[in-house]
Amino acid sequence: MAANEADKLITSDDQDHPANLIPSLCAKFWTLGWVTGTGGGCSIRDDDLVYIAPSGVQKELMKNTDIYVLSLAAQEPTFTERTYLRSPPCYKPSQCTPLFLAAFTRRNAGCCIHTHSQWAVLVTLLLEQEPQGGGGSSSSSSSRKVFEMNNIEQIKGFGRGFGKTGNLGYHDTLRIPVIENTPHEEDLTEYLEAAMDEYPDTYAVLVRRHGVYVWGDTVHKAKTQCESLDYLFQLAVEMKKLGLPWVSDIPRVAPDRA
Amino acid sequence: MAANEADKLITSDDQDHPANLIPSLCAKFWTLGWVTGTGGGCSIRDDDLVYIAPSGVQKELMKNTDIYVLSLAAQEPTFTERTYLRSPPCYKPSQCTPLFLAAFTRRNAGCCIHTHSQWAVLVTLLLEQEPQGGGGSSSSSSSRKVFEMNNIEQIKGFGRGFGKTGNLGYHDTLRIPVIENTPHEEDLTEYLEAAMDEYPDTYAVLVRRHGVYVWGDTVHKAKTQCESLDYLFQLAVEMKKLGLPWVSDIPRVAPDRA
Amino acid sequence: MAANEADKLITSDDQDHPANLIPSLCAKFWTLGWVTGTGGGCSIRDDDLVYIAPSGVQKELMKNTDIYVLSLAAQEPTFTERTYLRSPPCYKPSQCTPLFLAAFTRRNAGCCIHTHSQWAVLVTLLLEQEPQGGGGSSSSSSSRKVFEMNNIEQIKGFGRGFGKTGNLGYHDTLRIPVIENTPHEEDLTEYLEAAMDEYPDTYAVLVRRHGVYVWGDTVHKAKTQCESLDYLFQLAVEMKKLGLPWVSDIPRVAPDRA
Amino acid sequence: MAANEADKLITSDDQDHPANLIPSLCAKFWTLGWVTGTGGGCSIRDDDLVYIAPSGVQKELMKNTDIYVLSLAAQEPTFTERTYLRSPPCYKPSQCTPLFLAAFTRRNAGCCIHTHSQWAVLVTLLLEQEPQGGGGSSSSSSSRKVFEMNNIEQIKGFGRGFGKTGNLGYHDTLRIPVIENTPHEEDLTEYLEAAMDEYPDTYAVLVRRHGVYVWGDTVHKAKTQCESLDYLFQLAVEMKKLGLPWVSDIPRVAPDRA
Repeated sequence: MAANEADKLITSDDQDHPANLIPSLCAKFWTLGWVTGTGGGCSIRDDDLVYIAPSGVQKELMKNTDIYVLSLAAQEPTFTERTYLRSPPCYKPSQCTPLFLAAFTRRNAGCCIHTHSQWAVLVTLLLEQEPQGGGGSSSSSSSRKVFEMNNIEQIKGFGRGFGKTGNLGYHDTLRIPVIENTPHEEDLTEYLEAAMDEYPDTYAVLVRRHGVYVWGDTVHKAKTQCESLDYLFQLAVEMKKLGLPWVSDIPRVAPDRA
Repeated sequence: MAANEADKLITSDDQDHPANLIPSLCAKFWTLGWVTGTGGGCSIRDDDLVYIAPSGVQKELMKNTDIYVLSLAAQEPTFTERTYLRSPPCYKPSQCTPLFLAAFTRRNAGCCIHTHSQWAVLVTLLLEQEPQGGGGSSSSSSSRKVFEMNNIEQIKGFGRGFGKTGNLGYHDTLRIPVIENTPHEEDLTEYLEAAMDEYPDTYAVLVRRHGVYVWGDTVHKAKTQCESLDYLFQLAVEMKKLGLPWVSDIPRVAPDRA
Repeated sequence: MAANEADKLITSDDQDHPANLIPSLCAKFWTLGWVTGTGGGCSIRDDDLVYIAPSGVQKELMKNTDIYVLSLAAQEPTFTERTYLRSPPCYKPSQCTPLFLAAFTRRNAGCCIHTHSQWAVLVTLLLEQEPQGGGGSSSSSSSRKVFEMNNIEQIKGFGRGFGKTGNLGYHDTLRIPVIENTPHEEDLTEYLEAAMDEYPDTYAVLVRRHGVYVWGDTVHKAKTQCESLDYLFQLAVEMKKLGLPWVSDIPRVAPDRA
Repeated sequence: MAANEADKLITSDDQDHPANLIPSLCAKFWTLGWVTGTGGGCSIRDDDLVYIAPSGVQKELMKNTDIYVLSLAAQEPTFTERTYLRSPPCYKPSQCTPLFLAAFTRRNAGCCIHTHSQWAVLVTLLLEQEPQGGGGSSSSSSSRKVFEMNNIEQIKGFGRGFGKTGNLGYHDTLRIPVIENTPHEEDLTEYLEAAMDEYPDTYAVLVRRHGVYVWGDTVHKAKTQCESLDYLFQLAVEMKKLGLPWVSDIPRVAPDRA
């Protein structure tokens, strides 16, 4: 595609166009501490087209002209080589790309957000300290591989799962799987996909000592699920400081109404 | 009412019109972490008309066209079915609606704010750990059902109570009742109303593991009372981390001036 | 003075005019959490004229038309009754007024800031737990009455004292006196003045369980001293959580350069 | 150079011109709490020209006309006396100047940032509590003189070192030397230079009880490295509160991929 043809893909007066929305979302995420120091990122899928923030960009300064565009259908199943319909002149593709694509192809997501939020990182570090049931001999295999929390209202901010209707209830336990980090972000893909397989209802995967990937059917859902999750991770860290457990057995109030 | 007639209810050049004020307040509340992930909300009453933010909206992006309007007088006493004078095209009514209406009908409030502030949630969690006097057998019935704090200047930010003049004094003890959370937010209404009955002077009710409802005679009072309360909840959490008690017996200084 | 004559006192295109500067400063202070819920305030003196934010105003929404103006020379020495050259139509004078005036008359300050910063409040609460040398029998008289910190670079943000040139050095100990709170803010005045007498070099006075008053020769100095002090109070609270002492005996490095 | 000639050095419509960029960066740094109360600063080098924020300026209010400009080539090797091509009318040169120049001359940096971030200060205080191996007799000589952290994704935000290509890997240990503070900031220069010599790969030097200096080949790299480092310092403080170690021996996952 010729460059000026390709640039039409990222040019629009509509502030909700993906090429405009990614920069405005990333600026907001920078303020929230989610994409500090060029870490983290965001991708939006519009039907077959995927819009992705580049690698190494200052997220609060992004412009629509920084955005990559690719066709989902045109990619190889393994995504080992990708062809872009439109590329910015000065950047490299994000290492997060295959992880975003996993959310789009395996869950039909419309948006995927990756944050380096310290609350997410701290939660994975705290879980590392808790030996799990059948723990193995190495420290990573014996670390807890799932974040669990229940009986907090904000849990209702999450959908029940891919293909299900409605959201989690107050008494449901939210479960977010944790995968171990790898030296190269692209190598996370197979572990992320394995976690998706093991937790078919999850809309997020934590990455140990790294951050979190959160997706949703739409930009609205991905963003509000990401906000709700970050809220819960922050709450979890503060609860740990205060000696409060993340999972509790609250008796249901008003049993006469059940 | 015809749609274009109804839209006049939410159309004004006055930035203090409720349909303009709710979005600007909600954007501010989002920045404060009170309405993360579409949680929380805000409603303003202007005489008989009640303006309410819808359910599931990104609070920092709200517009006047997102607002519901209903007539207080036209509602059934039980509010089990509500009729709206004006509804936005893309949203559902907020589950908080009957709770906001309780503040308007029982306390003649002009504004009611609901936050998911983590400080409010943490305070209810900390109170859960403190068995109260006549504790029962279940964990919820044995949890503390009131937040108390005294001898902090910011307490003076609260009115003495409905129908009373003046504000609390520095040595007065602020008491905010805590109700248990329910799976469906609308089901909180009877507990909220019971707490209002038990604490006739309160301008706020905490909801365990959920957040807080705060109201006031005017938007100004509801908002500044909500700010003051959030300040006190944050202070209370920090005090707990540092081993400082929330209630103390400070001798009054300058007794010769009393 | 006729109202339209008086309004000239608070009308200017210059953004550095006190009637414009107080609102912009207060909006900034609100964002910093210093004037939550209408708490705190700010006053600027320009020669004989004193500009003061009113009581009970939402500080992030203030306008020049909300400002009181009074003549310093026209006030009674006891300030028990004050006459205003210009008053806003909808507000009451701030209870902080006599405390601001104390900074102007006794220290020739050009600006005085009062915050309810939680860091200031927490510092006074932590000092309350530390019995001081010759402690008396009541809990307030046995509380520590001075905040002390040394060997932190930010201490260099403070002047050496009224009428002295230059700023504190890195190894100097910053001392901020603490006075007990009173039910009525105006009653603090005599204690504030006594603390000024006892600590002639201080540019700030902490008020137990309340906040802090900070002043400076100019708006610039008052504001930057207030920022530096809030930084040190926050640092002090975090140091306490981590078991680090506020005062230490650091050997001077590079003694050959002394 | 005549004043109006000199002013051309700091006058440009390009928002990326150093004289425009320093104010916009400093405003951002103020919001991050890095340059509170006129502390900290920022300098950019463009070939031979060095642009520096002045001493004692409110960083969020800076303008291009506040900027100093000097020629690097025209300075004496010892920098004991500096000549400025352009000076602002109302300020003094920053005491940080010789430290910024050290980064420019010894590391060919394009930008150097100095923050008073509390996270940096707290990290140096925590290291002070940990006696190091061959500790001497005085408290400063027995304090830990290097911050170390590994196995955190954000570490990948740092270059491998001056003249090397690529960034640190996830399993690499980030090492930031700590120098003791001096009463006069200019006196830090020789210690900063010594730390540069001892840690030739570092892009940052912590100053005990003071803050941090961070540089990079470009403004982009200096800023994003500074953000990443502040993220890691904050994470380190929170980890300490939660009893989590900064350095760990994580087994490499997926050894078959190594």
